[in-house]
Amino acid sequence: MTLDRNILDELRAIVGAEYLLTGPEERECYSFDGSATGFLPDAVCLPAETRQVSAILRLASRHRIPVVPRGAGSNMTGGSLAVRGGLVLAMNRMDRILEIDAGNMITVVEPGVITGHLQRKLARLGLVYPPDPASLNFCTLGGNAAECAGGPSAVKYGVTRDYIIGCQAVLADGTVIETGVRTEKGVSGYDLTRLLIGSEGTLAVFTRLILRLLPAPESRYTFLLLFGEIDEATTLVAELLASGLMPCTMEYMDRTALSIVRDRIHPPLPADCGALLLVELDGDRSTADQQRQRLHNLLAGRKLRISEATDQEQRQNLWQARRSVSPAAFALKPDKLSEDVVVPRSRIPDLVRFLEELARRLELTIFSFGHAGDGNIHVNIMLEKSDAREAARGEQARKELFDFVLSCQGTLSGEHGIGLSKAPFLAQEIPPDTLRLMQKIKQLFDPLNILNPGKIFPPEEEKAPSSQSAP
Amino acid sequence: MTLDRNILDELRAIVGAEYLLTGPEERECYSFDGSATGFLPDAVCLPAETRQVSAILRLASRHRIPVVPRGAGSNMTGGSLAVRGGLVLAMNRMDRILEIDAGNMITVVEPGVITGHLQRKLARLGLVYPPDPASLNFCTLGGNAAECAGGPSAVKYGVTRDYIIGCQAVLADGTVIETGVRTEKGVSGYDLTRLLIGSEGTLAVFTRLILRLLPAPESRYTFLLLFGEIDEATTLVAELLASGLMPCTMEYMDRTALSIVRDRIHPPLPADCGALLLVELDGDRSTADQQRQRLHNLLAGRKLRISEATDQEQRQNLWQARRSVSPAAFALKPDKLSEDVVVPRSRIPDLVRFLEELARRLELTIFSFGHAGDGNIHVNIMLEKSDAREAARGEQARKELFDFVLSCQGTLSGEHGIGLSKAPFLAQEIPPDTLRLMQKIKQLFDPLNILNPGKIFPPEEEKAPSSQSAP
Repeated sequence: MTLDRNILDELRAIVGAEYLLTGPEERECYSFDGSATGFLPDAVCLPAETRQVSAILRLASRHRIPVVPRGAGSNMTGGSLAVRGGLVLAMNRMDRILEIDAGNMITVVEPGVITGHLQRKLARLGLVYPPDPASLNFCTLGGNAAECAGGPSAVKYGVTRDYIIGCQAVLADGTVIETGVRTEKGVSGYDLTRLLIGSEGTLAVFTRLILRLLPAPESRYTFLLLFGEIDEATTLVAELLASGLMPCTMEYMDRTALSIVRDRIHPPLPADCGALLLVELDGDRSTADQQRQRLHNLLAGRKLRISEATDQEQRQNLWQARRSVSPAAFALKPDKLSEDVVVPRSRIPDLVRFLEELARRLELTIFSFGHAGDGNIHVNIMLEKSDAREAARGEQARKELFDFVLSCQGTLSGEHGIGLSKAPFLAQEIPPDTLRLMQKIKQLFDPLNILNPGKIFPPEEEKAPSSQSAP
Repeated sequence: MTLDRNILDELRAIVGAEYLLTGPEERECYSFDGSATGFLPDAVCLPAETRQVSAILRLASRHRIPVVPRGAGSNMTGGSLAVRGGLVLAMNRMDRILEIDAGNMITVVEPGVITGHLQRKLARLGLVYPPDPASLNFCTLGGNAAECAGGPSAVKYGVTRDYIIGCQAVLADGTVIETGVRTEKGVSGYDLTRLLIGSEGTLAVFTRLILRLLPAPESRYTFLLLFGEIDEATTLVAELLASGLMPCTMEYMDRTALSIVRDRIHPPLPADCGALLLVELDGDRSTADQQRQRLHNLLAGRKLRISEATDQEQRQNLWQARRSVSPAAFALKPDKLSEDVVVPRSRIPDLVRFLEELARRLELTIFSFGHAGDGNIHVNIMLEKSDAREAARGEQARKELFDFVLSCQGTLSGEHGIGLSKAPFLAQEIPPDTLRLMQKIKQLFDPLNILNPGKIFPPEEEKAPSSQSAP
């Protein structure tokens, strides 16, 4: 579709001429996200306040224009792509931290605030907003809310839904709603806040978020552990958790991931290690010290190599391997399929063995790393998309991966969302009656299907939502 | 309404004759809950499995019979009362613990499992399901899910919504849905799990719950602190939290509450104390010891009286005052209005002063105790309902309490729900467009309004849900 001149004039009247982008180069900048490229919106709007968002959505409803809310575009599943054209609603100008109430440990922010920016500001006050997606230095809190972002600290501190306690949001028809509370607890009415969190911009556009905070931990210790086999690492993870030690990070890398970075970091990793585990402990000084001692006791006498960091520079050094694996992998192949499946923790070794077999059989490089503490594993399938046969084998690997994960009672996504790329697979995880109910909720919130259309729901289901519902 | 013979026969065919109760004495047993009495259902059904729940709801839909799901009936706001007659769906027979996966720290239960029963069973495995409502020895997990129950440990561990990660539930038309995951993380599709949690039996009937667990803490220390004034107690709470010490309980009692129990416990409380704080610390042994030492350091030099318990018997002794206040209060007056408002923590002293002034002005005994760490305060208004003028002053106090709480940016309910008793006040907290959206969700899930009708929504709103929605 193209937007006619009158609509563009109305949009200009709402946001001001300089905040409506219509030139091809400008729109190009909003045509990609962290997962794909090539979806040119018809225009990009940058609203400055809730009232403008509401006016834009009213207009879009009137003319049935698709509206794709967008933060930093760091989405990994196509969630911020304008797959049917229309308007990208770039929320970056709404980036004010409206309030920090240190005594009650809450903050009220606009959705365009960059996660890392808020975190640095809070750190100066001795406070922390725990969710820490890898993209935290550029992703936005609105995007985090839309995807229910996680991160390495989720194993101890939980994910975005555990910290957003209320919000202001605009519905597809322009209605402004206020959900949730400003207090630690609250059960008045339905939990619309959590219904919106993770709804990937398909139900409403966040215009304000109320976040709960925690006191910042004083100390952090980082351990790099190298094992011969993955089972030794996952056994340790289970023992750590059962012991009541609660690390704030338990990141693992499999053998293939280690081989990719082996010679690219200093000092190089030994050749015989089959798994890496990064463990971090935090807390007030005395508790962290105590936990560190307990971890040492627990590790004593085991067959593994241990490095420990107690300051920031050493810590960066230990994170080298984990941080360099994604860039290093592109030296092997130009393209990557990146999935964020979750399996029950105890099934991680099975998943790793499955991936080794899959890689061999399909002649692909597949490596995994991720959050061993909560079973949220980042599986990376390297390939060259321009090689049609390799691309097909990649898709085959992805399909088999999803089948395997669901057979383990796992889930397709721990933190990236379903978006565009996993929509065709959703019906494999969600039973038909449950999926139908989700679609009815979508219809209730957005009867004209203008809010981020083409996302989450399998394409064939989206077109003709059934109205029957009896089993 | 009365149920005709054919309907009763159909119900008997579904659950078996002995599990359909129709005698007046039997129905009487289901005519009350923790808040009120006198609502006789037309019949009580005790299903044994999901299939039966589904069949009952299909039948109820066909004949438009109200269905009130019920656990132990410990609800404090009338949530389990059959205010329009119809069927009570007593879930007590569905009380199996279907699975405990200790390695992955999850359990799958039916809704009729008693919370304390599960907790004792888990304790033997070194695991814990943290939510600890006062009624835990008789309330059910299904009821906890319906109300999003909390408890003293919420300040450290969160509430029911933080531990239920998936469920099976039956919709009003009998459709069985499966929501959520069995893994720590999961963001596939909309978060129906949290939408159902806290929906007070108005959207669906839980038939299975998937709970995440934590390792049980090894040690617990209990401190009873007595202060001259409430401000000293709340200042300490703020300092404790800001220091990174994270008590698992911070219960306070105000001056009136203390005066009620003063001479009823051994040893009697000193006459000059204006506030009590019960603080508990837990964790693995070394961490708890460390925290205990830090608390002692923090308390040193302050003007307060400290008692400490390190074993279970001493602990019970310190809890005496807190546990005996509710029964002791009935020696003053036969009736009680019991509210569970939440204010930002920093506003607790203002709330306490407001209550003192209110009690004086309206000539009522009003006392408060509750969860100082999260601002969730139990306000108790004592009165004699048969004295019409006193009852009216009680209602006036309740109304002024809600006004005050909302003026502090608080909420009407932290853990009891809205139910019947707070439904007339909900519109004061939830803005009209948001409330309308909640009503539309109710209509979507339950178009015939058979599931727990008369609850949550203000009576006038419930009858004629508006279809307009633009702002």
